[in-house]
Amino acid sequence: MNHTEQRKKLRAIFAGTKCLSPAGVVGPLSARVAEAVGYEVGMIAGSEVSHETLAAPDLLLLTLTELATQVRRIARVSKLSLLVDGDDGYGNALNVMRTVQELEHAGASGLTIEDTQRKGTLEGEDELVSVEEMVGKLRAALRARQDPSLMIIGRTAALRTMDTETTIVRAKAFAATGVDAIMLRGLQTLEQIEAIHAAVKLPIMLGMPPESLKREDLAARGARIKMQNHEPVAAMVKALHDTYTHLFNGGAPADLRAKIASAQQMAALLNSDSYQNSRREYVR
Amino acid sequence: MNHTEQRKKLRAIFAGTKCLSPAGVVGPLSARVAEAVGYEVGMIAGSEVSHETLAAPDLLLLTLTELATQVRRIARVSKLSLLVDGDDGYGNALNVMRTVQELEHAGASGLTIEDTQRKGTLEGEDELVSVEEMVGKLRAALRARQDPSLMIIGRTAALRTMDTETTIVRAKAFAATGVDAIMLRGLQTLEQIEAIHAAVKLPIMLGMPPESLKREDLAARGARIKMQNHEPVAAMVKALHDTYTHLFNGGAPADLRAKIASAQQMAALLNSDSYQNSRREYVR
Amino acid sequence: MNHTEQRKKLRAIFAGTKCLSPAGVVGPLSARVAEAVGYEVGMIAGSEVSHETLAAPDLLLLTLTELATQVRRIARVSKLSLLVDGDDGYGNALNVMRTVQELEHAGASGLTIEDTQRKGTLEGEDELVSVEEMVGKLRAALRARQDPSLMIIGRTAALRTMDTETTIVRAKAFAATGVDAIMLRGLQTLEQIEAIHAAVKLPIMLGMPPESLKREDLAARGARIKMQNHEPVAAMVKALHDTYTHLFNGGAPADLRAKIASAQQMAALLNSDSYQNSRREYVR
Amino acid sequence: MNHTEQRKKLRAIFAGTKCLSPAGVVGPLSARVAEAVGYEVGMIAGSEVSHETLAAPDLLLLTLTELATQVRRIARVSKLSLLVDGDDGYGNALNVMRTVQELEHAGASGLTIEDTQRKGTLEGEDELVSVEEMVGKLRAALRARQDPSLMIIGRTAALRTMDTETTIVRAKAFAATGVDAIMLRGLQTLEQIEAIHAAVKLPIMLGMPPESLKREDLAARGARIKMQNHEPVAAMVKALHDTYTHLFNGGAPADLRAKIASAQQMAALLNSDSYQNSRREYVR
Repeated sequence: MNHTEQRKKLRAIFAGTKCLSPAGVVGPLSARVAEAVGYEVGMIAGSEVSHETLAAPDLLLLTLTELATQVRRIARVSKLSLLVDGDDGYGNALNVMRTVQELEHAGASGLTIEDTQRKGTLEGEDELVSVEEMVGKLRAALRARQDPSLMIIGRTAALRTMDTETTIVRAKAFAATGVDAIMLRGLQTLEQIEAIHAAVKLPIMLGMPPESLKREDLAARGARIKMQNHEPVAAMVKALHDTYTHLFNGGAPADLRAKIASAQQMAALLNSDSYQNSRREYVR
Repeated sequence: MNHTEQRKKLRAIFAGTKCLSPAGVVGPLSARVAEAVGYEVGMIAGSEVSHETLAAPDLLLLTLTELATQVRRIARVSKLSLLVDGDDGYGNALNVMRTVQELEHAGASGLTIEDTQRKGTLEGEDELVSVEEMVGKLRAALRARQDPSLMIIGRTAALRTMDTETTIVRAKAFAATGVDAIMLRGLQTLEQIEAIHAAVKLPIMLGMPPESLKREDLAARGARIKMQNHEPVAAMVKALHDTYTHLFNGGAPADLRAKIASAQQMAALLNSDSYQNSRREYVR
Repeated sequence: MNHTEQRKKLRAIFAGTKCLSPAGVVGPLSARVAEAVGYEVGMIAGSEVSHETLAAPDLLLLTLTELATQVRRIARVSKLSLLVDGDDGYGNALNVMRTVQELEHAGASGLTIEDTQRKGTLEGEDELVSVEEMVGKLRAALRARQDPSLMIIGRTAALRTMDTETTIVRAKAFAATGVDAIMLRGLQTLEQIEAIHAAVKLPIMLGMPPESLKREDLAARGARIKMQNHEPVAAMVKALHDTYTHLFNGGAPADLRAKIASAQQMAALLNSDSYQNSRREYVR
Repeated sequence: MNHTEQRKKLRAIFAGTKCLSPAGVVGPLSARVAEAVGYEVGMIAGSEVSHETLAAPDLLLLTLTELATQVRRIARVSKLSLLVDGDDGYGNALNVMRTVQELEHAGASGLTIEDTQRKGTLEGEDELVSVEEMVGKLRAALRARQDPSLMIIGRTAALRTMDTETTIVRAKAFAATGVDAIMLRGLQTLEQIEAIHAAVKLPIMLGMPPESLKREDLAARGARIKMQNHEPVAAMVKALHDTYTHLFNGGAPADLRAKIASAQQMAALLNSDSYQNSRREYVR
C-alpha cells in the first residue's frame, strides 16, 4: 500500500457517515500494535511526539524535522492512514508550506493547521491569529500540497475562548479556502457542532469533546473523527514504571510473564517471519 | 551533570564489588521513568532500538546514525549513565572508530564492541571474527576515544560456540588491548566466569546469564553488570495492546484510569514544573 | 514534477541511443546550478557525499541515513533525475532491501548496487562477492522496490581484476535477475563493452572509462550513461581556497566580483522570486 | 582539541585588541579549506546553511535540527572555533534555551541571538521584539548554557531602523544580562560603535559594516569580529557553473585541470593519510 491509497482510505472515512476515533500512535511499534488490534487510522499528536522525543511538555519545542522524522518512521512500517498534528504550521505561511511538503513526503494522509499563536506559553495558548492570517496559511497549505489526495484540515481553537457565532465566521472563512475538513477544539455542545457543520458544509474532526456527547449524535452532525489520544502513552508509562520497579527491587524477570507481550506477539509485530523469509530467499 | 560525570559514576560501579542490572531503556520517556524508579544506569540495546525505530527484528538493519540519534535523545534528558550496545562497530576497524566518535559525542558512558561477524543472518550470528581482527577493532576503538572516562568494553560471544579455554585465549587478547572491561554472552556456569575473570583481571559485564546463577556469586567472580533488558519493551507493547483493544471496542477512556500514569506522574516525568518556571521567568 | 516522472525520464534515456554524462551533484545548490546549465540527470556518488558530509575519503564510513538524507535534500528542490550510488547496499541482501526503500523514498530515479566486498580497505576494494551472493542482493533489491519506474542497476567492478569472459558470466547472471541496466567499472576497450552488451542485452552505464573511448562509439555499443564526476567538487574546493586566501590576506571582498556568482544569479538559483510571490500572496 | 579549547581560543580573540574576519563556512569541506588557508575562526550563517541545505533564501525556513546537524558535521572534522548564527533563537525564550543546548552540544564556540521578530517576511525583517522580551531571551540563553566557555552574544538590528541613542539603551539592557559580547547589524559610522562600546563595555561583533570603515579603527573602538561571509558560497556557485557548463557542452574533463583542486590537495583536505594509517594499523 502506498501513501496515496492510505490517503484515499482516510478520505472515504471523512466522506462516510460514522465518527471514528483513531489510535493515538507515537512510534513504529505502537502503530503496529494499533494495526494488529484492528485500527485503520492513526493520530500523531505533536504533544505526544514531544513527550516521546524530548521528554518535554507540549510547548512547541519540537522541530518540524523531528516531527517529520517520526511520521516517516511510522509511515514506513505501517498501513494505518495517518492524521498528523501540524500545529500552527511551525511559523508563518511560508513555514506552513514547508510543513505540508515535509509531512506529505513523510507519509501523512491528512494534517491539521491550527489558528493558535506561536507563543508556546500556557497562558497564551488560546490566543488566536487573525482570520486573514489563518486564511493565508490555509491557502498556502493547499498550494504546497503535491498529492491531491492528501487531506488538509483547518483547525480552530476558537470555541475555547469565543462564542459560537464568532467561531462560525472563522470556520466559514477557513472552509472557503478549499480545505477538506474543519477540526474543532473546545466543542461543548451538540448545538455548536450542528451550527458549525451547517455553515461550513464540510466534515468535522473533533479534538477530545466531552465524553457525554454521544458518538452517534456527533456523527449525525458531521463529525467523522474524534480524537482520544492520551491514554496509550500514559499506559506505556505505567507499564514501564511497574516493570522497572519490579526489577529494580530484585524481582525476577520470569515473574513478569503475565504483564508483558510474549515472544510470539513480539515476533508478529516485528514481521519476523517476513524478514526470515527474505533472509532465506536472498542472503547468500 | 555532564557526560564525564556520568562516565565516572559508571566506572565507579565497575570498580566496585556489586553486580547491578541496568534499566533497559529505549527512549527519553523510558529513561525518565527508570530514573524516577531509582536506576543510575541504563542499557541501550541495538535490538530494542531497532524494534522502536524500525519495528524490525535485530538483524543489523539499524544504521549508526539512527542509534546515535536515539542515544543523544536519551542522554540530553537523562542523568542515567548509559551503556550502549555498539554491535560489531558497524563494519571494520575504521567503522569502529566512527562508532566510538558518534556514541561518545551522543553521550554514551560506556559502549561494547562485539566479535561477531557482520552478516545479519540468524544462522550466522555465532560466527566470530578472528582474534587478530577483533584486537585491531578494540585498539581502534581506544584510539578513537576522546574522553578517557568513556568505557570501552570488549564483548565476545565465544562462549556460545567455543569452549572455555578458547574463550579465555580470546578474552585475554582483548584485555591486553587496554579495554576497560570484558562482556560475555552465553555464560552458563560460575566456573566459566571464574576462569575468565582470573585470566583477564578486568571487571566483567554479562549479557543475560541463566537466572539460576546468583547475583552475589557472579559479583564474587568479577561481574559488575548483568543485562536484563527485554521486559520493559514487552511490557510497553502489552500495555499498548490492552489500551488500544479497550478503546477500539468502544470502551470509555475513563475506565482506563487504573491502568495509566496519572496526569501528575506525567507532569513529573516531563519536568513540567521546570519548564513552567522557565516560562514565567524568561518569556515576555 | 514528482519522482515517478523523473524516473520515467531517466528510463527514456536508457531506452534511447545516446550516451550522456550526468552532472556530478553533491547538494541542493549544486543540483540547482546543474539544472540551470541544462542538465537533466544528476549523479550522486557515495565518495562525494562522503567528502561533503564527513570530509572523509571514500572508505564506506558514510551511513545509509546520511546518504538518504542528502538524496532527499537534493530531490526536494531539483527536477534532475537522480542516479544514486548505493555502494554494496550497505551490507547483506537485507540491508540492500533497506537501501532501496530509503533511496526510493528519498527520491532517487535510479540506483546502483555493486559486487564489491564491504571491507572499506583500499587494497581490498577490488575483492568481489560471489555471483550467487550478488544475485541474491539484486533479487532483493528488485523485491524491495515499490515504484516500478525506479531503475535498479547491477554494478560490477569485475573488469578491474578479471578477464572479459569471467565478467560476462557475472554480468549475465546479474541481468537474469531482471535489473534494468548493468554498470561497468574498469572498462578499457570497446571490445569489452561490445561483448558484454551483446551478452546482457541491457543498457550499459559506465564508471569513468578512458577518455580515449569516444562517446559515440560507446553509445553504439549500448552505453547510455558515462560518469564524469570528480571535477565539480574539486572546482568548488579550488574556488573556496582562492576566495579564503584572498580574504585571509586582507584582500577586499569587492575585488572578488569577477570570481563569484552575482546576487542576481544567486537569487535565481534560490528561487527567490517564487518565495517572494508566496510571501506576498499568503503571509499576513 | 575539544570544544572547550576551541571556545577558549574564541574568548581570547574577543579579549584581545584585533578585529578579525572569520571564514564564512557552510560545510565540512569548506571548514577544512579555511583551516588549510590559516583561519582559526569560522562563521556559520543561517542564510548560507539555508542556501546549502534547502536551496532557499534566508526566510527562517531552516529548522533548528537542520542548523545543529550542519554545525555538528563541521565541528566533528574541524579545529576552527565556530561562531554560529542562532537567528532569533527559533521562537520564544524556551526555544532559545533549546537552541543554546543544541548548538552547544553540536560544538559551537559562540552563538548569537538576535532581537528581530520571527516573521520571515522581507518587509518585516527590521521589526524588533521589545527590550523586555529580548532580555528574557538572553537570560534564558545564559541559563541554558552548560559549558561556561561557550560565548553567548546578544545581537541587535536596531541600528538599521533606530537612532544611536535608542540602540544604546537596548544594547545596555542586553549587556546587563551578562552576555559575553554585543553584535551590531547596520553599523554605519565610527561614532556609533564608539558610543555603543563605551556604553556596554563589552567586545563588539559586527555584521558586515561598510568597507569604508577601517579595520584598525573598528578594533580601536572595541570590534573584535567583523563578518564578511557571502563570497565563499558565491565563489563555489560560480565554479560549479563554469565546470558544469564546460562539461555539458562536451568539454574534456582534462581541460579543467587548472581550475580544480589537485588530487594531492583533495587528499590533504580529506585527511587521507591519517585514514590510511589507521587502516594499516587496525584493519585485519
